[in-house]
Parts: sequence; C-alpha cells; structure tokens
Amino acid sequence: MTATAERTAVEVPKTMRASLLKKQGDVALENLAVPTVDDDQVLVQVAAVGVCGSDVHYYEHGRIGPYVVDHPLILGHELSGRIVAVGAGVDSSRVGQRVAVEPQRPCRVCDQCKHGRYNLCPSIEFYATPPIDGAFTEYVAIQADFAFPIPDSVSDEAAALIEPLSVGIWACQRAEIGPGSRVLIAGAGPIGIIAAQTARAFGATEVYISDISPDRLAFALEHGATHALDARTDSVEGLNVDAFIDASGAPQAVRSGILAVRPAGRVILVGLGADDVELPVSFIQNREIWLSGVFRYANTWPLGIQLVADGKVDLDVLVTGRFGLSEAEAALQAGKQPGQLKAVVYPGR
Amino acid sequence: MTATAERTAVEVPKTMRASLLKKQGDVALENLAVPTVDDDQVLVQVAAVGVCGSDVHYYEHGRIGPYVVDHPLILGHELSGRIVAVGAGVDSSRVGQRVAVEPQRPCRVCDQCKHGRYNLCPSIEFYATPPIDGAFTEYVAIQADFAFPIPDSVSDEAAALIEPLSVGIWACQRAEIGPGSRVLIAGAGPIGIIAAQTARAFGATEVYISDISPDRLAFALEHGATHALDARTDSVEGLNVDAFIDASGAPQAVRSGILAVRPAGRVILVGLGADDVELPVSFIQNREIWLSGVFRYANTWPLGIQLVADGKVDLDVLVTGRFGLSEAEAALQAGKQPGQLKAVVYPGR
Amino acid sequence: MTATAERTAVEVPKTMRASLLKKQGDVALENLAVPTVDDDQVLVQVAAVGVCGSDVHYYEHGRIGPYVVDHPLILGHELSGRIVAVGAGVDSSRVGQRVAVEPQRPCRVCDQCKHGRYNLCPSIEFYATPPIDGAFTEYVAIQADFAFPIPDSVSDEAAALIEPLSVGIWACQRAEIGPGSRVLIAGAGPIGIIAAQTARAFGATEVYISDISPDRLAFALEHGATHALDARTDSVEGLNVDAFIDASGAPQAVRSGILAVRPAGRVILVGLGADDVELPVSFIQNREIWLSGVFRYANTWPLGIQLVADGKVDLDVLVTGRFGLSEAEAALQAGKQPGQLKAVVYPGR
Amino acid sequence: MTATAERTAVEVPKTMRASLLKKQGDVALENLAVPTVDDDQVLVQVAAVGVCGSDVHYYEHGRIGPYVVDHPLILGHELSGRIVAVGAGVDSSRVGQRVAVEPQRPCRVCDQCKHGRYNLCPSIEFYATPPIDGAFTEYVAIQADFAFPIPDSVSDEAAALIEPLSVGIWACQRAEIGPGSRVLIAGAGPIGIIAAQTARAFGATEVYISDISPDRLAFALEHGATHALDARTDSVEGLNVDAFIDASGAPQAVRSGILAVRPAGRVILVGLGADDVELPVSFIQNREIWLSGVFRYANTWPLGIQLVADGKVDLDVLVTGRFGLSEAEAALQAGKQPGQLKAVVYPGR
Repeated sequence: MTATAERTAVEVPKTMRASLLKKQGDVALENLAVPTVDDDQVLVQVAAVGVCGSDVHYYEHGRIGPYVVDHPLILGHELSGRIVAVGAGVDSSRVGQRVAVEPQRPCRVCDQCKHGRYNLCPSIEFYATPPIDGAFTEYVAIQADFAFPIPDSVSDEAAALIEPLSVGIWACQRAEIGPGSRVLIAGAGPIGIIAAQTARAFGATEVYISDISPDRLAFALEHGATHALDARTDSVEGLNVDAFIDASGAPQAVRSGILAVRPAGRVILVGLGADDVELPVSFIQNREIWLSGVFRYANTWPLGIQLVADGKVDLDVLVTGRFGLSEAEAALQAGKQPGQLKAVVYPGR
Repeated sequence: MTATAERTAVEVPKTMRASLLKKQGDVALENLAVPTVDDDQVLVQVAAVGVCGSDVHYYEHGRIGPYVVDHPLILGHELSGRIVAVGAGVDSSRVGQRVAVEPQRPCRVCDQCKHGRYNLCPSIEFYATPPIDGAFTEYVAIQADFAFPIPDSVSDEAAALIEPLSVGIWACQRAEIGPGSRVLIAGAGPIGIIAAQTARAFGATEVYISDISPDRLAFALEHGATHALDARTDSVEGLNVDAFIDASGAPQAVRSGILAVRPAGRVILVGLGADDVELPVSFIQNREIWLSGVFRYANTWPLGIQLVADGKVDLDVLVTGRFGLSEAEAALQAGKQPGQLKAVVYPGR
Repeated sequence: MTATAERTAVEVPKTMRASLLKKQGDVALENLAVPTVDDDQVLVQVAAVGVCGSDVHYYEHGRIGPYVVDHPLILGHELSGRIVAVGAGVDSSRVGQRVAVEPQRPCRVCDQCKHGRYNLCPSIEFYATPPIDGAFTEYVAIQADFAFPIPDSVSDEAAALIEPLSVGIWACQRAEIGPGSRVLIAGAGPIGIIAAQTARAFGATEVYISDISPDRLAFALEHGATHALDARTDSVEGLNVDAFIDASGAPQAVRSGILAVRPAGRVILVGLGADDVELPVSFIQNREIWLSGVFRYANTWPLGIQLVADGKVDLDVLVTGRFGLSEAEAALQAGKQPGQLKAVVYPGR
Repeated sequence: MTATAERTAVEVPKTMRASLLKKQGDVALENLAVPTVDDDQVLVQVAAVGVCGSDVHYYEHGRIGPYVVDHPLILGHELSGRIVAVGAGVDSSRVGQRVAVEPQRPCRVCDQCKHGRYNLCPSIEFYATPPIDGAFTEYVAIQADFAFPIPDSVSDEAAALIEPLSVGIWACQRAEIGPGSRVLIAGAGPIGIIAAQTARAFGATEVYISDISPDRLAFALEHGATHALDARTDSVEGLNVDAFIDASGAPQAVRSGILAVRPAGRVILVGLGADDVELPVSFIQNREIWLSGVFRYANTWPLGIQLVADGKVDLDVLVTGRFGLSEAEAALQAGKQPGQLKAVVYPGR
C-alpha cells in the first residue's frame, strides 16, 4: 500500500479481518495484511458480499472439481464496496466511489481476451477460487475497470448481487431472449428468479419457471415469472418455448427442458450438476436446437447496474439473511433453512 | 399429365417402372402411373440416384423412428435427371434441362418457412420418407424451384450427390467453418469425406478425420482430410479444434469429439445414432461450446453445384457401385461390402 | 367469389364501394366488383385503414419514384378487418376472425423469399402500389398467413396501425436495439413516435428524439421518448448513441444523426427523402458504423400484435382524425393540419 | 534497455539509425536512442518495412486529417523483424524469433477493447501516426502478443505485408465473403489486389476488379481477380454482387459500386477519399444493403500468416521496389512511377 497511501485521504489500516475457509467445514476469523494494489488496481473496502452456492460447496466439500482448498481461502465473490485507494495508473479521483465489483482478472493478451471473450481466458483468476482469495474480508484489490461506479439509488446488497445478475444477463444474451420471447427456466433459486426477471427485462412475454418448492414458485411468480410449474407433476413437453435456461443442475430438468424447445430454439445450461448428462440428442438434431452453457460472464456489469437502477430488476427482494463477518459460517449454512434465498455478509459489521 | 402434356416436346409415357420397398426386406419392381405435376412443379426423368444410409435402414428395419413403411414405398432421395414436362405455372423453356433435385417440399407459409428455415417446416414432405415416394423410379415430380440446372461439366452421379454434399455444406455453415479453421470429423463414410472436402472448400486448413477403418482413412486423406486418426487408439482430446462434426453417430465418438473442441467452439451432430447420448455437459458449459445438429439443409443446392463445377469438391470419386433399376435391392446391400462408399442406381438402365 | 361463397355464413355482396385515386389529386367513390380470392387467400371486410405518407404522396404527386398512377388506384395499406370468406385451401373456421393485415404478397420461391427476406422479393406485390390496389374499400383479398388474428383487447385502429408499427419493429431489429440501448431518432411524426415506443419496448433506456415542432416533441416525450431535442438548435454530435434511426428523410438530420453514433454503432434510414444524400463517409469508416435502411418488413406482425396487446406500445394515441370512406380525400389532406398525426378511414361508415 | 539487456544473448546497441520525416517533404537519416521496452513488450530488429499510401501522404502533405506532423516522425507501419530483447514480463525464449508486427497498441481496458473491437479503442496508439513513431528504423518496441512468429517459408517482405493483408482480411470478414461469393472490388492498387486474393482465399468464385489502368488490371487478373473492368467504360450496375469493397477512395467508384450490390448485400469502404460523399441512399434503403468501412483490423495476423504460409495469398509478387534505410525518401516517391505497387525499405541495409 505504500505506493498508493498518499493518493487517498481515507485512512487504510495495515491489517484487516478476514473469514478464512481453512479446510472443508472449518471457518475462522483471522487478521491478514491488507492487499497491495497493482498499478491498474483499486483497493475496495467491502460493503456487502452475497453467499453463492459455490461458496457453500467449497465449505461443505473442500473442492469444486479440480479446484481444491489446500490452503486457507477467503470465500465470497459477489461484492460491493467503496474505493479507498488506487494504484499508480488509476485516476485518484476515484477514491470514495461506491462500486460493484466484477470479481475476475483475465490476462487481456490471449486469443480469447482479444476476441472479447475474456471469461474464457485460460489464465483468468477468479475470486474465491483456489488459490485466489475472495471477499469475506474488509479490503480487496481489483483492476480499476472491473470496479463499476453505482448510483446512490442502488443499495450495497443490490450492488453485490450484480454478480449473480450478470449470470442471468449472460444467459439471456446467449439464449437470444428478446421482445416477445417465450422462455422456460428450470429452478426457482436465486439464479432462476434472477434469470426470470432478466428475461422479462429483455422483453420476454411468457416466462415459465419450474421447481419442486411451492414457496419458491410463489415467490418466483411475484418476481419475474409469468407461469409456475410443479417440476414433479407438470409436463413442459410441447411448450415450444424459444429458449430454455436451466438453473437447477438437475439432469431430469435438463432433459425435459430441452424437449420443451421449439425448432431452432436455444438451450442454456447455467446450473451445475453432474459432469455428464444423458441428453435427447436426436431431438436436438431434428429441431436444430442450439445448446450451450455459461461460464461466468463478460461485459455485463454496465447493463446489470442499469437494469437495477431503472427498477427493471429487483435484487433487494432476494436478500433473506444478513450476517457480520464473524458470522460468515452461519451465512454459509443459512441456505439450508426453508425460505432462504440469499445470505449477505457485511464485513464492516 | 394432361395439364402438362402439351407443354413438352418430349414423349412422356403414362406408366413407369419403380422399385418398391413393399415391406421390411422386400423389394420389387412394379409398374406405376407416372406422377402428375402440380402447377408449380416439373416432371423429372431420373438419371441417377444415390443410395443413402436411410434408404438402407428402411430396407433393413422397415422404419426410422416414427416413420414406418406400412405401405409400399419408393426409396431414394439423392437424384439428378432431366426435366421432361412442366406444370401450368412453370416456364416451358425449362423442358430439357439437366437438374439436381432438392428432394423436399416445405409448406412455405409457416413461421419456420417464412424465416428462411424451411427445413424445419413441420409440414415438410421429404422423398422416401413414408408416405412420400422417392426416386428409385423413372419419373418424379418436384417444385420447379427445387430442380436446379446443372452445367454439362457436372456428371449425373455428381448432380445426384449434391444431396449428401448439401448435408456437408449445411454442417459446415452451422459449424461456422471458414478460412483457417481447424476441424475434427468423426467417421470417414460418405458424409464424413464430403464434410472434409467441404470444410477444405470453406477454407479450413486442418481437417482431422477419425475412423476405425484404415482403408477409409486412407481414402479420406486423399480426398479432403489433412490428418487421419485411428478412432480406437488415437486420442483427440486437446486438439482444441474450432469445430467438431460428427458423421459417425457413435456415442463414444460424439463424447470424445466434444472434448477436442476449444472454448467457444462448435459441435455439429450429423450422424444418427441413439436417441439419447451421455454428453460431457460440464465441459460444454465451462468452454461455452455451442452444440447442435443438422436436419437436412436449406438453400444449399446453388453453392453445392458451384463447388462441384469449380472442382473444389469431387463427388464422382465416391461412387463405388453402379446398378440398374432392377438391381435396386443389390444396390441397397452394396454398402455391406468392404471398400464400398456410395452405390448409384440408374433408373434408365 | 363463387368458389368461396358456400364456405361462409356471412353474406358477401357482389359489389363494394371503393375510394379511387383516378389520377394525381383526383379522388372519387365508385362501385367495384368485390375481389375474388385465390385458394390461399381470405376475403377481409375492412374495418379501419390508416393513412400513410406514401398515400398522401401518390395523391399529391401521382407517383413515387418509378411507381406511377396511370390507372385508377385504391390507396391504403394500413388495415384491419374481419374475415368473411376463405379460399379453397384455407380452414373455413377462420371466417369471423378479426385480423390485422400484412399488405404484401411475396412470390415465396425466389432466393430472397427462401432465405427469409421476403420483403426483398423482386416480384413482391404491395397494396396501394401501382398496379396493386389497396384498402380504401370495403373488401380486400389477402393470403391467409398474412391475415393475423387479433385479440379483443386490440382496437380496429391499433390493429390497422400494426403496419407502421412493423416498420418500427423492423428498424429496431436491424438497429440491434436491446436492453440498455441508447438511441437517437430523427423526426417525431408517426413513424418516429412509433420507433421511440418500440425502442423502449426493446429495452432501450435512453431515447432521444429530434424534431422542429415543439408540439410533436412534447407528444413524443409523453409517448416513448426520454429526451427531446430541437432539430434547429440542439446538437446531437457527441451523444455516442448505440443506434440512430432516421424517420425524417431530411438530409441534414441524416448527416448529423450519423455523427451522433458511437464506434461500431448502427444507423437505420427509414425516412424517405432525396435519392442521393451526402454522407460523412470517413466518419462511418473510422468508427466502423453499420448503415442500412428498411424496406418495409418481414415477419413482424406477431410481435407487433403482442406489443400492443401487452400495452408496451400504444397505437391508439396516434389517431387524430377519423373519416368515412366518402371522406377519403379529406383524410388524405388531414396531415396538413397542425397537431395531426394519423388519420384513419373507416370503410364501413 | 537496462531491464532487458541481460535477458538476451543478442548484442543490442544503444543507438540506431532512423529515417525521420522532419516536416512535410523533408526526410533525414539521424541517430536516435534505441527504444526501451515495457514489461509486456519485445524489442524487434526491423527486417523489412512496406511503404503505405498513408506514409506517402504524411510525406507529401505533412498531415492526415487531424493528425499533424508537428514533430519529427518515423514513418512505416508494415513491418517484420526479429526479436532481440524482451520486457520483464515476457518469456525470454522468444529472443531470436522472426516476427510479423501488428503495429498498434490498444488500451485493453475500455469498453471497445473488452468487447474484442480493440481497433476502435479511443486511446489506441498506432505506428507512424503522430506522435507515435513507426518502423523506418533499426529497432522498434511492440507488445509481445502483437509480435507474431512466422515460419521460415514466409519471407521478410511477405511478413511485413501481413499488415496490408490484414486490411484485406478485415474487409472480407466484414463483407461476409464466403464460399460462392461474388465480389466487386474497385481499385487495383496493392489493397485492391490483396482484397481480391483474400476474397478468393475466402471462397469467392467471382471477383470483379475495376481500375483505370490496363496494367494494373492485367496484374490483378494474374493475382486474384477473375474479371477485370475498365472503370471508365464498363458499367458495373446490375452485377448484383454479394459484396462490394472499395479500395479506390474515388467517390464515383463508391457510388457506382453500391449500385452493383444485390438486395441484402454488403458494401465495405476501405479506400480513403473525401470526408463526405454523395451516396445513393434510396438504393441502399430499397435493397437493405449494409454499408460500413474498415478502421485498420483486429485479430487478423494469425489468419494472415496462415494464408501466406499455405500459399493461398502471394504477397511477394506485390514488391516492386527495394530500398535501404538511407533511401527511404526514394521509397516514398517510388509509387509515382508506372508499374510500381509496393516499395519495401530494409533498415538493415
């Protein structure tokens, strides 16, 4: 921080509290050095951090696929905060800005980056993915252009949840949802509900959402979906939707959702489930359906902030639990409770 | 034929010989009435008909999925010929033209047709698909705009094989193959070899083809492929191709081929195999690969004819067996022999 | 009508009243035979017809470019009505349906039609374009798939105005307007206001509209636009919008609008003005801006009806004058009055 | 160079010779310090530099639009060479590589860069564009990922000319030229001929080129074009090509070329001429033609190198003059001679 200390009027301490996942199921609060910033970075004092399913998965299993928590790791990658210092190459007038953080760092020089698909950069670093630390802490460093100013009308929580909203935006963009689209979404968890709201903001006129929880379906109907389907009893076959977005990760939902898509329609797999799933390949062929997935997102924050600021998407309604930094473990466990959608950790509390 | 008889100088008989698939495994030569043409159609005297795997499948199994041969059916949908009569709405100067026939009839009024995706028309009629007759006969009727004039330099056989070439063109177009593309093709049968040639014609610089037959691989290397892979021993993982085209229908080839695709690459499934295949879904998601199939083709004949006329694709080399109309059953069985790629039936012989 | 008379319970007379443009500036009400319908057509009893600028241009000048009124012509191509009879190939259950009419007839067999761009069909016939008659009359014939059923919630006037709405939809689609787009529209006449509403329905967050009439600008701000600009005094340069839609046809507006577009943005010219316009070509090159126009529309009615039914676009507010069939000439002159946007003729009155 | 000196076995001197454009029409050879490299850059010993029309324009006029030569400037932006030193962040094994240089430096953090359109970066720096120096000198610094290794089979001259080839590639990509395309190119100078070769490599089957020089047309016919047109006497109207690429910058050629384009075709303006040109706007509207330009290129070097290595494009044939560094002024004047296409400067001579 020496390099930047004189560039900010805000007092930045040398150490900070951080909630560490030391190993599977073992969370502890410790003091760490405040991160230094590179020339192209800013230091953000974290205001709010959403808990994501991947955080919970690391906590419960100690790994996600090839990513293993073999050193203590700070979780959390859905965050907002305030810039308190800037790197040598960043305009110092940015100190004091409230920002939503896009929690990834692509290399910017590889073929994928230079084609605008930086989310597919093979060297990308992503918050809370071993060995990169996340945001259950007081301060984080991020490249200046990945810290997006937010207007006063956007709450800290909503600003943090621009991250899952970005997943919904990226899914809807790849699904080519537009005015008049008819969409099926499987899974009425946070991502499913966000995707439903996003689809509506993109002009979709019919948004079917399926889940096994009546409560979640009822909530989804209030916040984005136009039709609710019981995943256990209602068939989606023949809906002939323009796009199907899976936010469940359930193989059966993926299979039946595909069968709901019209010829030349699109399937976007967002939910993470089994590595391999048996798919109705001849149906996909005969209808020339396009199927793909999303791997995070690229260039979504400006639109996400705008959708929230314009009231087209309401992220605040998703917050069902609020926790201090010392309660991070409780936040990671909150999703098990009925009726819980999104827990938020406030590192300043 | 009354309506059109006076519009042609060519003598068209009232009856014709046709090779009928009466039921599974039962082929017989019979005399049928020459078809009448609608106002928008022409009558084509068939010159050459390629035998397709689907013809063989109907012959051997009596059905393909929901399409059942429950009435005698004329097989054959890869054809060329000469226009001998025209419908009331067609310019009579077309009589005498040598043509390649696109063997399908879309409704032209549905949503898919009006968007240019007429191959996905739910009311489409396709040659040699019950109950629509095909071309193992002397005369067929086809809409005038689906009978494409061919130059003298294109042989009857090559003109007939514009049909499978169209599958390769449609696959390469959907796979977005262009200058510099690196492509993997699974299966070195007629479609795989045609796809390899087409990919090269589209500018691909590396075309890997995999098969279990050394003979087929050797042939493919002479006619389109740049690299041959033994499907039993060579791994394709890590090839990082821009596109993978499956022309094998083998589940294992589909699975391993997907793993050969670079981030943001494309997978096009052409081969028909099991209705359901276990796919590496998380790989597709993490790489944001687009996967789809082809269902026949749309608007491919003009380009196909041009590729053949310009010598960029050589279809004549595929012909390994020649049969008269009375030998249609032998033609359907020819593919079982080693070294056979494409049998052609000549209804005029 | 013989062919269809027995297929309808509605009594269709043999003759009908029609307002004919006999030559430049000369309109007369006459009795004509009710049109017969082809097998693929329906007969529509016209309910409402909007007056378009092109109708007025034919009335005032007797021609538009190469299209000359050298025989009496029925004007009017923005229309709704009710099906009263159907051709031999049309489901007779359609009799009685209220419909919005897409007033064009493509050939369906040319290369453009088969690629889904039927509006560019070189053989297309269009209502009220010599020598094709339009809708200032009691009955018209149209292909069944170009007569779109409308829900009760959509008024006759709004259903007629799906036609200019289609121009706005087509323009917004070609301009790639989507969520978060910033758009500039030149001209606050009916098309400009419709384009503004459409852009908003497509998700645009900022819609600048420019005009020289304070009244039109005030109206536009109430119905779609977010910002109004005085075309005589306000500069648009530097707005850096994603898309510029010209609905003015004024060369100066076209030029200055282009200068308002960001790099890689789009310009769509809707307004008709001079055949040749001096454009800032090096600006277009340096910013790699895409410029094109719209020629009518293709496949827009379903979305148009939905936007109106969902209340995302309000067409009824545009109607500022109502006329009987015998008042067609007054309707053609109505646009000259201040405050007039859209005159509607009711052939049944 | 201190930072990198120890990272290379090649001896790099402290000073170098450079050909400076001191002001309009005033070229002098001087000694300058060898440039230092940033962490992400390499130092390239220049082998060959092509002379571009923009170099000549700076020499003759002292400016191009807003870019004024108000300080001594090194011209030249078409170059190849050999890496002799690398910055701290670059793999030192690259020292010794022969490379083709993409002569621009985007910011990598703006919205255009992050969307993959880095050529439209508002902060981009480009060789030989004031105040950025170019390559008429012995050593240049470039970012490591903009120095592309070339195989032995590609000559120094061809490697340098990947730059104008990139313009041709970018134009053909934006013009959507593919298999079977029919293309018109106006202007048979270096860019026109390169565009013709590129169009053929992309699969175009008919490439019309127009010019006023019979010699240039004859040369173009030998190297890419399939048809030659005398721009003074041959009309192109009605050609109905899929794409028109202007490489002439002549307003009359632009106008007439547009009239040669089929409905839904594309026009790409490459040539630089007047800032404003009168265009046939109603023709563009009625045919829904897309018109745009190219501003340099993005992500074209890998394909360019491949096209040359594969022999699909022959750049060596374009070289008609060879000059040492002290002859740079003669090289800038060489284009005035009849029969001259491309002069190359060799800074090592």
